[in-house]
Order: sequence, then C-alpha cells, then structure tokens
Amino acid sequence: MIDKNYFLRKAQDNFPELKYSVLTPEITEFIGSDGEGILLDLGEHAVGHFSFSFDRVDVFVDAPVRLIIKFGEDIREINDDFSQYGGILSKTWLQEEVINLDFPQKITMPRRYACRYIKITVERTTRPIRLFDFSFRASTSADVSALKPANKTDDLLRKIDLVATNTLKECMQTFFEDGPKRDRRLWIGDLRLEALANYYTFNNLEIVKRCLYLFAAGECNKSGFLPSFVYETPYYHSGATHIEDYALLYVVSVCDYYEHTRDINVINDLLGICKSQLESFTATLDENLIATKQDGWFSFIDWCPGLQCMTALQGVYLYTLERFSGLLKAIGDEEYKKYSALFSQVCSASKKHLYDENEKVFVNNSDNAQLSVHSQVWMILGGVISGDEAKKLLLSCLDNKKFKQPVTPYMRHYVIEAMLKLDMKAEAVQYLKEFWGGMVELGADTFWEAYVPDDLEFSPYKDRMINSLCHAWSCTPSYFIRKYGL
Amino acid sequence: MIDKNYFLRKAQDNFPELKYSVLTPEITEFIGSDGEGILLDLGEHAVGHFSFSFDRVDVFVDAPVRLIIKFGEDIREINDDFSQYGGILSKTWLQEEVINLDFPQKITMPRRYACRYIKITVERTTRPIRLFDFSFRASTSADVSALKPANKTDDLLRKIDLVATNTLKECMQTFFEDGPKRDRRLWIGDLRLEALANYYTFNNLEIVKRCLYLFAAGECNKSGFLPSFVYETPYYHSGATHIEDYALLYVVSVCDYYEHTRDINVINDLLGICKSQLESFTATLDENLIATKQDGWFSFIDWCPGLQCMTALQGVYLYTLERFSGLLKAIGDEEYKKYSALFSQVCSASKKHLYDENEKVFVNNSDNAQLSVHSQVWMILGGVISGDEAKKLLLSCLDNKKFKQPVTPYMRHYVIEAMLKLDMKAEAVQYLKEFWGGMVELGADTFWEAYVPDDLEFSPYKDRMINSLCHAWSCTPSYFIRKYGL
Repeated sequence: MIDKNYFLRKAQDNFPELKYSVLTPEITEFIGSDGEGILLDLGEHAVGHFSFSFDRVDVFVDAPVRLIIKFGEDIREINDDFSQYGGILSKTWLQEEVINLDFPQKITMPRRYACRYIKITVERTTRPIRLFDFSFRASTSADVSALKPANKTDDLLRKIDLVATNTLKECMQTFFEDGPKRDRRLWIGDLRLEALANYYTFNNLEIVKRCLYLFAAGECNKSGFLPSFVYETPYYHSGATHIEDYALLYVVSVCDYYEHTRDINVINDLLGICKSQLESFTATLDENLIATKQDGWFSFIDWCPGLQCMTALQGVYLYTLERFSGLLKAIGDEEYKKYSALFSQVCSASKKHLYDENEKVFVNNSDNAQLSVHSQVWMILGGVISGDEAKKLLLSCLDNKKFKQPVTPYMRHYVIEAMLKLDMKAEAVQYLKEFWGGMVELGADTFWEAYVPDDLEFSPYKDRMINSLCHAWSCTPSYFIRKYGL
Repeated sequence: MIDKNYFLRKAQDNFPELKYSVLTPEITEFIGSDGEGILLDLGEHAVGHFSFSFDRVDVFVDAPVRLIIKFGEDIREINDDFSQYGGILSKTWLQEEVINLDFPQKITMPRRYACRYIKITVERTTRPIRLFDFSFRASTSADVSALKPANKTDDLLRKIDLVATNTLKECMQTFFEDGPKRDRRLWIGDLRLEALANYYTFNNLEIVKRCLYLFAAGECNKSGFLPSFVYETPYYHSGATHIEDYALLYVVSVCDYYEHTRDINVINDLLGICKSQLESFTATLDENLIATKQDGWFSFIDWCPGLQCMTALQGVYLYTLERFSGLLKAIGDEEYKKYSALFSQVCSASKKHLYDENEKVFVNNSDNAQLSVHSQVWMILGGVISGDEAKKLLLSCLDNKKFKQPVTPYMRHYVIEAMLKLDMKAEAVQYLKEFWGGMVELGADTFWEAYVPDDLEFSPYKDRMINSLCHAWSCTPSYFIRKYGL
C-alpha cells in the first residue's frame, strides 16, 4: 500500500494555478442613506472576493455604518427573504453579511462568494454615504483563453455549451468543487463528470490528477470504500460519508484519466486502490452474483425521493468492472482476465436474476420491486442488455409514470450516456435540449444543482433558496456536444 | 497665518508610538453547539483587536459557522439586549458582530473594540465546534511602565487614582480619544482634561503636541472659533461643530502645555490661533462687557438638560483671559498687558452685571435667570469672586435643588478645580470620593462618561446602553490627587 502522505504530496505537486480577473458592474457609484440600497450586476456568474470603497458625501459620518450585503447567483435569490428559510441544510450557506464599518475605507470582504448579483442595503448611517469602486476579483483554474468554441451551428446547443463550460469553469478552483456557493468540496460523483467535461474543454490535467490523489489519500470505511468527499481547506480532511456507487465511479474516473492521457505513472500509483474498491464491492455478491445491501450502506445514484438503488448499484458495478478490465488490458496487466471473466459472469447473472423477460424490464426484490429509470439506465450502461431491446426499454421508461424518473442533472447525464452507448444520438440531443435547454430558457448563466421543469421550487433540501445554481454535475453537455459532435 | 499643512506635518511628527500587550482570559477553550456560548473576561478594560481560533471537535463542520460576538465594557452591557436600543446616537456603536466562518481558521476581527468582557454565542453550526486561542491585543500610547503609584495611604483615593489612570491609558491611542468605545475622536474639552492628567501620570508630551497641532489645522467657523473636534482616521477631517467654551479651552490647553514644558517652539506656532480665539469671543461683548449669544452658537459646559450657559461661558472667557495673559507675560510678549487689562475690566463688569449682591449669587437674564452650579463655578474660576464669599456660594449651591447641578464628570472636574482654587482641599477630597468613589463602589474598571448616583439608567442619549464606560473627561482624579497631594 502506498503511503497516504505520498498521495497528499502528489496532490500538492498538482496544485492548479488560479487565474484572476476583475469584474466591475456597470453602476459605479451609490449615494444614499438608511434603508436605501443598490443592486449590482456583474454581468456573469463569478466566484471570488468583493471589494468596494465607502466614503462620506458631505460632512463626516460620525458613527459606524452598517451595511447588509447579499450575494445571489440569480435575481430570484436576491429577492428571497433569507429569514424565511426552512430547508434542511445550514442557513449559513445563504450568502448574506451584516458588516459594520468604522470609517471611510476600501473594504475587501474576507469570504469568497458565488454570485452574479450583489445587493447592498444601508441598514444604518448617521449621514448619507457614498459607495464606489465596486470590484469583484474572480478566480478559476480553468484557462478560458485555451477554450475553443464548440463546432456547432445549432443555436441552442451552442448556448447550452456556453453555459456548461461556464459552469465547469466556476467549479474549477484549487480542486473540482461540486458547487462554489454551497458545499465547496470534492465529491467523487462530481469529479468524474467535471473531469470528462474538462478533457473536452479546458483540458487542465493538473486539477484532475490532484483530485484523484486527494481521494487516494482518503480514509476508507470498514467496507473498504473510499470517502465520497474530501476537503482540502484549510487542511486536508477525509469525508465521513462512504457511498458505494461513488467508490466504484472513482475507479471509472481513473480509467477515464488513462484513456485521455495514457499517463501510466498515475495509474501505477492508483491501481491498488482501484482494485480494492472493486474487491470490496465483489465481496458483497450473493451466491447468484447479485450485490446485497450491507449494514450502514448509503447509495446515492440520484436525489430522487424514495429511490431504491440496488439494481442501479449492480449496474454501476458492472460498468466499472468492464472499464477497469479494459484499463488493465491496455496497460498489459494480466489480471484483466480475472475482471473480464467476472464481468461476464455478473452480467449474465444480472440478466438472469434481475431482468423480467416477460415484462422486458429490470426489477429487483431488493428494491422492493420498485421500477425506476435509474435501474434500467445503469443496467444498460452495465451492458446487461443492448441493442434494440435496450433502446426499447429506455424509451419506454422515460417519462413513464410507472417508473421513478431522474431528478438531478447528474442522473440525467447517465441517461444520455446510455443513449449514446445505444447510438441514440437524436434522442440524446432532444433530451439534452429539453432539459438543459429549459434552464437556458429560464435565463441560467450556469447550470443548476437541481432542475425539475414542472416544479421550479423543487429542492433536495426542502427549500429552493439553498439550491446551488452553479453545480458541477450539470456541466456535461459540453462533454457530449464536443465529444460526440451532437 | 501659519499654513495648515505645517500644522498637520507637526501633528504627524508627534505621532505617538502605540504599545501593545496581549490579554488572555482565564477560560481557554469552548466546545459547544447551536445556542451555546461562552463569556470571556479579560480581567481589565482593554482597547484593541480580538482574535481566536475555531476548529471542529470530531468530524468536519460541513457548513459555515455563524457566531454572534458581543463586546461589553462591563457585565451590564453584556447582558443588555441591543435589539431594544432606543437612544438618539447610532445603534452601530453597540459592539456586536455576526460573523460567518467558512472553515477552521484563526480569526482576527478587523474592528477595534473597547471591552473587558466578550460573549460568543454559536448562532448556527452543523456540528459541535471548538473555540480556543482567545487573545486580545490591546493598544495604548501610555507608557505604563513609567507610571509611579500615587503617594497615597488612603485606600479609596488609591483605588480612584488607579481607575482614573486606567481610563486615561485606554483613551490614549494615536491621539487623545474621548472614549474608545464610542465617538473615538478628539474633542477640545476632553483634550484639556486628558493632558492635565497625563502631565502627572504618563507624561507623554508627543500626544499632547500632536493634539494641539491637530486642532490648529482645523477649519474655524465664521465666528473664528476652532472646530470642537477633529478626526484623524482614516484621513484628517475637521469637525463641523464649533463650541465656544471649547474654543476658549483650547487656549487654556496651550497655556497648560507651556506651564508644564516651557516649550516655546510650540507656543510660537500656536500663539496666533490662541489670540484669534480670544478676539473672536471678545467681539461678542456688549457695552457692559457681557458676552452676547450669537446666531448658531452651541455652548457645551455640561450635558445637563435645559442648562443655560451664558454666565458660565462668561466665566470660561475670564478664566482663559487670565491664563493667556499669564502665558504672554511668561514668554515676554508685551501684549500681555492688553489681555490683563481686559481681564480686569471684564471681571469687574461681570460682578457688576451678573452678581446679585443681595442674594449673593450669579444670575443672568440671558440665562432666563436660571440658577446653576455651572454659573457659580465658572464665575469663581473666572476670578469674579473669591475667598469666603466664593466658598460660601459654592457650598450653598451644591446639592441645592434650586440650582441646576453638574451631571458629567467633566463639569465635576471644574467644581473640584474651583474648590482647590479656593483652598477647599477637604471639600474637594470629599466631593471626589463621593462621586468617583461611587463608580469604584459599583465596580468600575474605568470611569464613565455619565454617572448620576441616584439614576443609574441616566444617559445624555436617552439609552444607557450607548454610554461610554471609559471616558476621558472622567480621568482627572489622578491629576488632582497627584498634583495637589489630596
């Protein structure tokens, strides 16, 4: 086993350079008094630090001035009354500060914010004040100058690509953040999708390596799974949650990285961890080669209320097995045969035990026989069925009320991935345009963490205010558009 | 006329060095969650910057932590509910911050506070947190190591001296502040008293010179009076208020400075301004040599509701004339004869027109015949009456309900000054012990801006919460005790 400090050193060696740009709103000055305020529009979504100057208008302001400064990723958030927040995540993620300023000065606010709009309200002053020099110093590790436009004539797809690359850019800081407004940590599920989109856009390889190593340094749980997230600020900290599908997708991320770079050094460092993830999962298979739910397991798959995940998880496992045996074969590791054989056996077993040949659908008693798009998609991605049979199943379950439907852009990514696996390019474009195009229609500058077209108040956290409006797992349209020439 | 920039340069040349010390409360750690908190006691009043560290207790705190941090000069202030504040000064002086912290870090709060107690309450956290490394970096330009103890055996006077020197020390920053919690500016009235106490304690001459020059650079109003206050942070700003008694007391402050230092260079710089202050006031005398109230005048004398000030003002004028002619004589300026002659004439005229020979009391129609201790004290200090006649009058008006009584420690200083002028040492000691000793009895670490023994809720600003509990104009007991060997 390679020493964790080695991984942390490698992660540090690949620390990406942050690039800074300064955004200034069109409005350059505000003069006002108690209760008055100003709304600044940066013109685009930005992640960084806000600064401004404050001075007197006429005579000296003879007491501290209290300002309320609110940051919103969109205008709806600016108009939200944060005091009414009732979600399950901490209200401290809502971006609002009350600050007291003793005397005329230039202020650089110490915290980082994610926003397009900034609203400043004068809570209390003894004299009119002047605010000016508004400036937002934005950061990203994406090299925007290296980005080529997508080779598209379709207007909507071009717009979608633009918003998707923006989303990715904003989440690319010193690591792949899931969302710059909230959470701000590295999750495996987001990492995989960000890395895919990155390969076809900014192609920053340092950040991918850094993230792969950061997880490699993580503390596995007693089942042997990697942590699903890590923090790097202010010091490295391995997350306390271990999601099985994420542990498997870490292996897929390593495969993606090799496929894109042929960088054998990184693979050699991470191979042992990849094998142990698969072994840990394999250990849970029953005599029929079907995964069994273990004590303390937490599967993600999608933020879909009440979703049963065992079938989908079996699909993720198959998907990973196939990719990993492919990686081993490519690098000349003879163990590929073992994984390849295992893949074939589990694949057949999955069809035998989880596929209802009469109904032509995947259904599993471990999921309480719940029908879901998730199960079907992941079984297709796992290669259990293919061709027309798979196409027909996929089309029949989408928008079918008998099936649990995808909720997050994250799960919708895998729907499209399944479509493209089945050469359903037209359907993939339509699906992409309908869903991501819907956000574009609503004026999105970046793609959202959650978007349910017929319920704009939907939140996985029971209050829409807390939703992240720039979320990494929404950024893959660029990957699809650019890789597959959609 | 000397150029204002010359005065500002001289003020800068005399910028006093700040001395820093680090105070740590006895409690060194807090572990807690939502709604819980800690009360830190620095053991003494301090002016400066607070810092502390925050970290997780077990697993990572996965959302920003919101803390409410309140600073109180005494424990009563800590227990006040600031949301109920209803005073006339800005609520922003109340020392409380709500801060959001993104991750474990050491925090140094950017603003300066004046406090002995610090209360931290956890408003919101997702996991228990640990607060530690509490540290308060206090500043003063007073050299505490140079301070000799007062040569006293009387316990109460020794305590009073200690609290008074503490008060002065706290107000001595880069200039003589009136109060480090609130206002934080240089007022002439406070300057004079602080300088007096300073000469007999820390004897920092730089800060006195600096303050005298800061006023010299100020913008006089159309009557020719100096501004009553100036700001030096973040840039020099001359206050928009011009108080006549303060303009005169500036001249007295210059006289005090020479008397203490014999520093003729500073006097040569400031002589012109001193003369113009007196000339401006002299111009308002009527044919009887009695000052007449001018349009836009604002006299201070004391924060005593409804106080009429013209008689007291006449006294301040006389007091200044006498001191200034003495200064001129001492430095060999022949003009002293003019001021000396004027003093004699105005003194006689004041007795003739403002003293009721039957009632043996000063009374003035310009004051609507209002009786006040203030009028009597300032007429005595102005030399209009003296000896037994003056003693009798002073004793008869103090605590006499027919007379407006002194409210602020500032005015009480002049009561004692009058007593000592009349050789009433025993009365002065008693008065000092009763008033300043009363604050000591109530646990004062520093002397207050306002103290009315039978009304502890009294505030000149209609809400006691906003009162400054460390206020320069309360610091002169040390001057009296040390200069007069009380």
